[in-house]
Amino acid sequence: MVDILHRIGVKAPLAEVYSALTTAEGLAAWWTDDTTGEGGATGGVLQFRFEEGGFDMKVLDLAPNEHVLWEVIDGPEEWIGTHIDWRLERADEYTIVLFQHQGWRQPVEFMYHCSTKWAAFLLSLKSLLETGQGAPNPNDVRLGNWK
Amino acid sequence: MVDILHRIGVKAPLAEVYSALTTAEGLAAWWTDDTTGEGGATGGVLQFRFEEGGFDMKVLDLAPNEHVLWEVIDGPEEWIGTHIDWRLERADEYTIVLFQHQGWRQPVEFMYHCSTKWAAFLLSLKSLLETGQGAPNPNDVRLGNWK
Repeated sequence: MVDILHRIGVKAPLAEVYSALTTAEGLAAWWTDDTTGEGGATGGVLQFRFEEGGFDMKVLDLAPNEHVLWEVIDGPEEWIGTHIDWRLERADEYTIVLFQHQGWRQPVEFMYHCSTKWAAFLLSLKSLLETGQGAPNPNDVRLGNWK
Repeated sequence: MVDILHRIGVKAPLAEVYSALTTAEGLAAWWTDDTTGEGGATGGVLQFRFEEGGFDMKVLDLAPNEHVLWEVIDGPEEWIGTHIDWRLERADEYTIVLFQHQGWRQPVEFMYHCSTKWAAFLLSLKSLLETGQGAPNPNDVRLGNWK
């Protein structure tokens, strides 16, 4: 099993970052415009849609302003059963986001792509909370022949 | 051992991407302004310097327009002995860059940071080759309380 790891510091309060990870409105502003569902309660399901498909995530764990854990229950075969883990903490004037996309079965080329893409979306999250403007799909950074 | 993986597609010829990875001038234009040394011959050493320190890389393997492999021989303790592996291939109108920073001993928080930072620098490499303008240190994207 292999994991994608990222860390980013956001100059915003813990509660604002947590809200951007647990509400459809917040998620839509940095990941994909087409986000629906319930991210604020354990057992809730979030639907993320892109032109080329999407993901459904089940909320497995929540600790307000500290932790969010999702399981991928629908989407690309390589993603199903993997976990997306978000830990939040304060350091200096930043909310630090420690991100893991855990449990890839193999380090396939699609995993390389998703690693870079997650970084671009974390920069979108940072931008949203620091400037009011994220870069969610469909206006996200395109990485080449794979979107 | 754990690895950082990334993939990016650059709308530029293989030879231009290879040059940006194997010449001090090319590396300086997307990673750090302060790059010196010899990246175009096996056994050569490249010195990358940032305000907060830097890295020395020994070139272990080169296959023109296909592969570049470095070993970190000086720098942060967590980096020493790790390998940076670049594979290039064509897909559609893109040169695909498959990047690995291999052999981290532990998934420490610094590794999370470096993963996101590598993605930002790969976007800088892409921008350099597609627009003529990269974002090397000291004008790179800052990720928070860790640069």
